[in-house]
Amino acid sequence: MSCNHHHRQLSDTAINASVVELSARLSETNADRIFIVTDSNVAPMTSPFVEKCREVAPADIITVPAGEANKSLSAVASICDNLSASGATRHSLIVNIGGGMISDLGGFAAAIFKRGIRYINVATTILAAVDAAIGGKTGIDTHAGPSRLLLKNEIGAFHKPLATIIASPLFASLPMREILSGFGEVLKTTMLFSPSLYSSALATSPSQNHNLDNLVTACGDFKRKVTELDPTEKGLRRILNLGHTAGHAFESILLDKGTPLPHGVCVAHGLLVALILSHICLGLESTEIYRYRDYLRETFPSTALSCRDLNAAEVLMAHDKKNRTGQTPSFVLLRAIGDPVEAYSPSPSDISQALNIYLDLL
Amino acid sequence: MSCNHHHRQLSDTAINASVVELSARLSETNADRIFIVTDSNVAPMTSPFVEKCREVAPADIITVPAGEANKSLSAVASICDNLSASGATRHSLIVNIGGGMISDLGGFAAAIFKRGIRYINVATTILAAVDAAIGGKTGIDTHAGPSRLLLKNEIGAFHKPLATIIASPLFASLPMREILSGFGEVLKTTMLFSPSLYSSALATSPSQNHNLDNLVTACGDFKRKVTELDPTEKGLRRILNLGHTAGHAFESILLDKGTPLPHGVCVAHGLLVALILSHICLGLESTEIYRYRDYLRETFPSTALSCRDLNAAEVLMAHDKKNRTGQTPSFVLLRAIGDPVEAYSPSPSDISQALNIYLDLL
Repeated sequence: MSCNHHHRQLSDTAINASVVELSARLSETNADRIFIVTDSNVAPMTSPFVEKCREVAPADIITVPAGEANKSLSAVASICDNLSASGATRHSLIVNIGGGMISDLGGFAAAIFKRGIRYINVATTILAAVDAAIGGKTGIDTHAGPSRLLLKNEIGAFHKPLATIIASPLFASLPMREILSGFGEVLKTTMLFSPSLYSSALATSPSQNHNLDNLVTACGDFKRKVTELDPTEKGLRRILNLGHTAGHAFESILLDKGTPLPHGVCVAHGLLVALILSHICLGLESTEIYRYRDYLRETFPSTALSCRDLNAAEVLMAHDKKNRTGQTPSFVLLRAIGDPVEAYSPSPSDISQALNIYLDLL
Repeated sequence: MSCNHHHRQLSDTAINASVVELSARLSETNADRIFIVTDSNVAPMTSPFVEKCREVAPADIITVPAGEANKSLSAVASICDNLSASGATRHSLIVNIGGGMISDLGGFAAAIFKRGIRYINVATTILAAVDAAIGGKTGIDTHAGPSRLLLKNEIGAFHKPLATIIASPLFASLPMREILSGFGEVLKTTMLFSPSLYSSALATSPSQNHNLDNLVTACGDFKRKVTELDPTEKGLRRILNLGHTAGHAFESILLDKGTPLPHGVCVAHGLLVALILSHICLGLESTEIYRYRDYLRETFPSTALSCRDLNAAEVLMAHDKKNRTGQTPSFVLLRAIGDPVEAYSPSPSDISQALNIYLDLL
């Protein structure tokens, strides 16, 4: 009980810190009006942020139903209608409060309303704080063609937020699958840039929620730096796709099979494939494969993929958005932890071998 | 008959010039696929361009129904669906062939498909060649609020075309109201930057179609230069709104009254209001007012506005997209022909007086 009480106090202080940070950012914007975009899950927790917004300018709340299915063109159209009908101008500001779905959706509305207005993200999930809400990639999913195939982020824009504020006290209220999904991106980011933070991540149990804040802040800062150097993904930024070529393929296959896993969990599995390929193609030390495999098996749920799924995985990787028509899939690989190679196209047989080893190892 | 024949030959040569220019541009792009976006009016005239596209890459045609009412979100969604279903990649290219509606619509699809792909405009109207198809302003109209009020370019993006190719031989097939609409923007542009080209424009009868090509090319080049210096309209680019504050208001009022006039014709009338305000506020010589009034009256249809419409005009100008909430409307004014002032906010009584003088002069 006293321990709980202690936790509550910590949380309040920390919430206050992010509210104070939002307030400082808002006061620099000279916005004539503020529009808060949030979802039905997060809305009940937003009042401290809403109050701060209202101290700066008249503020309206636009609540979207929660769930990835609402990352749609009709939801963007509805946000823009709402902005128009409420008299938003080019000098108005959007504050997105939520996870990656909200920063993608509200950020895209900000990108296209009157050809672009400013916005701030308040990240309430780990995934948003280390990845989705940073760097200005915004967008929605569509369903195209006669098969109505789901196409993730098929429509969108590059539009940088003024700031991304990490509402880390809200992480504690996240379901475990969401915490793990965010932690997959934490593992990816530390693998890319810091052997010591990577070791620290492998010593962390995401469910304990200890040490998480430092890792999340460091990963967010790293992503911000990379995206500032290469805002529209012409080169360097591509390293952030480490683990995503196989990860996206696993995500699609599991969705089709009716046993979906969250994005970051699939990325965590894709990272093992990337390490195996890095060993095959670039001579990464095999101990790195086993070290990561042990952590993955202990911490993350299994994909439960079988050898019958490998063909589909290879086909899906060949159709990744990053490829040109007819090209072999490109991977981000590692010469060592902290030493990425931006684009490497392994031979089809190397890819096939790596997927088989992935199955054998788990 | 021999004269007609001569014209035909000229046209063929000139069409060939723009087709050759398109071909040269396309060969630099290394596009994996080309998607031609056009409308139902223009489609029958596009075959020489389509053939050139097909020499460079596989090319599909996406035809949108003609008419401003189709500059809509559902038309953009349909273009993007088409791109997805046909397997367009980030390395594919859109070629917009048409007037401003098509460059706005197809350009916006290019801006948001996979967060932005490249595009080229082939301008088949004067308005597109001197204004709409240059500078990367893309967008669509929406209807917002309970009144379903038409909001022009309420949703859009800044996304620069690789090139704008002027298909001037197709101008001859334009209806007179379209030619005049384009010429309104020609008058605006020459007023902004060149006393001698402005005099040359005032000596031109748009219906004769002589001297038009040089003026159109010069105006297009001027707009390109201004938009390169200020792509997202933070400052200098605003001068291109000369005549548009009153022009947009006239356009809305006439639409409401059921007697619409094309955009550039309304701008031509807005230019007279701008000259009058420039005289009142900045001491522009009054001879410039009369010289322009005479040309306007001789060349352009009347707005047939009465003093009962002035109140609505003042309200609409106060709601212009360029204003902040609660601000008085901002005008581009001229100290002299070729010497613009980027932002000037006349007093409400000066605006009212200028509108009254406008009615008296016509």
